[in-house]
Amino acid sequence: MRSTVITGIGELTTNDPGFGTVTDAAVVLEGERVAWIGPATSAPVADTAVDAGGRAALPGWVDSHTHLVFAGDRTAEFEARMAGAPYLAGGIAVTVEATREAADGQLAANLERLLTEAARQGTTCVETKTGYGLTVADEARSAKIAAAVADEVTFLGAHLVPKEYTAESYVDLVCGPMLDAVAPYARWADVFCERGAFDEDQSHRVLLAAAERGLGLRVHGNQLGEGPGVRLAVRHGAASVDHCTYLSSADIEALAGSGTVATLLPACDLSTKQPLPPARELIDAGATVALATNANPGSSYTTSMAFCVATAVLQMGMSVSEAVWAATAGGARALRRDTETVAGPAVGVLTVGARADLHVLDAPSITHLAYRPGVPLTWAVWRKGSAVVVPPPRDRTPW
Amino acid sequence: MRSTVITGIGELTTNDPGFGTVTDAAVVLEGERVAWIGPATSAPVADTAVDAGGRAALPGWVDSHTHLVFAGDRTAEFEARMAGAPYLAGGIAVTVEATREAADGQLAANLERLLTEAARQGTTCVETKTGYGLTVADEARSAKIAAAVADEVTFLGAHLVPKEYTAESYVDLVCGPMLDAVAPYARWADVFCERGAFDEDQSHRVLLAAAERGLGLRVHGNQLGEGPGVRLAVRHGAASVDHCTYLSSADIEALAGSGTVATLLPACDLSTKQPLPPARELIDAGATVALATNANPGSSYTTSMAFCVATAVLQMGMSVSEAVWAATAGGARALRRDTETVAGPAVGVLTVGARADLHVLDAPSITHLAYRPGVPLTWAVWRKGSAVVVPPPRDRTPW
Ligand SMILES: [Zn+2]
Ligand SMILES: [Zn+2]
Repeated sequence: MRSTVITGIGELTTNDPGFGTVTDAAVVLEGERVAWIGPATSAPVADTAVDAGGRAALPGWVDSHTHLVFAGDRTAEFEARMAGAPYLAGGIAVTVEATREAADGQLAANLERLLTEAARQGTTCVETKTGYGLTVADEARSAKIAAAVADEVTFLGAHLVPKEYTAESYVDLVCGPMLDAVAPYARWADVFCERGAFDEDQSHRVLLAAAERGLGLRVHGNQLGEGPGVRLAVRHGAASVDHCTYLSSADIEALAGSGTVATLLPACDLSTKQPLPPARELIDAGATVALATNANPGSSYTTSMAFCVATAVLQMGMSVSEAVWAATAGGARALRRDTETVAGPAVGVLTVGARADLHVLDAPSITHLAYRPGVPLTWAVWRKGSAVVVPPPRDRTPW
Repeated sequence: MRSTVITGIGELTTNDPGFGTVTDAAVVLEGERVAWIGPATSAPVADTAVDAGGRAALPGWVDSHTHLVFAGDRTAEFEARMAGAPYLAGGIAVTVEATREAADGQLAANLERLLTEAARQGTTCVETKTGYGLTVADEARSAKIAAAVADEVTFLGAHLVPKEYTAESYVDLVCGPMLDAVAPYARWADVFCERGAFDEDQSHRVLLAAAERGLGLRVHGNQLGEGPGVRLAVRHGAASVDHCTYLSSADIEALAGSGTVATLLPACDLSTKQPLPPARELIDAGATVALATNANPGSSYTTSMAFCVATAVLQMGMSVSEAVWAATAGGARALRRDTETVAGPAVGVLTVGARADLHVLDAPSITHLAYRPGVPLTWAVWRKGSAVVVPPPRDRTPW
């Protein structure tokens, strides 16, 4: 197995409670896993050696919420929203139409373009969803295309009621033939529980059917107003409830007392002119918080986890440590990938045996992610032990 | 003279009222100037040809407000602020101490590192200030170091009263020997007119002395609360008043009726937990608005003009066109470089004869700067006709 040793890590964020943050560290990657972590001075030799020159390193970003199987353009809708038009879930239908018309190869190429773009920014584990097909065949092919390249695939047939159906008859389809067709390609099912999408009863039926089928559960909830999303997610033991923009104190309490992660999507809130979610209240109450991009062409067309982290720190009252944890270990927890499972080694954490997903910043500390918003700080990235952003040769430490 | 033709520009933002935004355009750069602009189909030949493949192009960013001649680190102060500590002008003293101790070569290297970082993100014209020396010798060497590489240099001796002086005796120094020593290296003078820095009378004296000396005027004002900064800037015919976070309606009216640009620094406001400035009100009243980074190690350690543009659109009610204009032509206007002068060809605009500063995005339109916040979208950059970000060879259009 090929090995790489990265020495000269000025600040290593491990997310391992036993290690914490280590200064003057080294990491050895061997095959697809982390083989060794310790002081730079006692690092073992490896096939390839990289000197990080005092730079900060952390686990690759875990983007636990994206919608990347799509075609079509919604630039004009974004422009209209910036000029004052409200965000409505119905905009999804525009992408559905374009996605249905696109060839498989076109969908796959677009997905790979965005995964590559994300990887170049340090994102090494990505969940992505179906939800722009909304027919049995289009949902199944979306899931199959996603499963070929994404780390985690979520079935989101219950994204919007297509105009050909009533809500009830569509939920029948989602819970029956569509679930049957998609389940082979997906570990997760999700439902958009929101006014204009699926109500509490309909969402409940979708989650029940998916759980019976053995899929893990996720919920889109409380995005555009208070509602039953969080309550439902906690009741069903969902791994995550995502958005959480509008939370009652009962919602926060319920999350704090549950294993359901509150996944916050601040880039989406900014892009839809919603308030930012109550991160501070969630953390202070004891809830587990993740940060993700919600990358999709409608409400949040960014792959930048660094932007989400900067926003969380600058505008949501999270500390840098909390935000970085939420964007790595928190995302992993939301995907139940924070420890080794049949799905593979742990991600979002740097411990011996974890997946060899490492992100080195062109900065001396993770604080710079918020201190220097917008500046591209990715210096090197390894995913499953392979360099996806190759460190520049002989690059002098620049500060 | 070497020439380069860039063809296949899907959307060209010229900032030239006669041209506006052109589709399917080409631009020819010859020496340090733009030689030709027109339809891609009739582009003349040149020494080098680049096909932009449908990408959007615009003038390079004009960052009209930075403080890049400094040494030392203020990461801990940023962290404390994020944890709730207030921003106080006094933090500047930390940088002053480190800057005084630094060798010339160290200051120059740090400045060049940040200018290079900015250029890689599409910034092709940068103003930078003194203000971390605050002795005659340290202000003069700061200005000299800046003048060697920056497009515009501003004397900001009146940044903070050093603890060795009373305010009045320091203003005497600034208006006398310090101005004499710095003037050969600077086109501009600036004063930090704010509670904790310089009051209205002291600021007035600084501006008067600088104007008598033939320097153009700029003012730091209305950053931490309403105050006399805007009023003073307009009264003195300053080219720009910068921050404008807290404005009375009288301030807005005064700006609208003046040639003084309101330069907004949203990254600074976010980084100091201030509200964002009233951009919409300024534009609607008829004021000229510029966007700049205020890059400095204390209150705004970013060189990302794209972050400022995204913030302006997502959170300040500016349209994408307004924000892009403000970050290019607006910055040029704030530096009185929007037309050709003794200082050189026009910047922030793409017209025949303007400086050959061109920024090509890896996106089909400038809208993506706000639609895709945080994603590094710079594909190619020319400054004074030379490629500072070289377009990747044979790079297929990715959307
Ligand atoms: Zn979503
Ligand atoms: Zn400033």
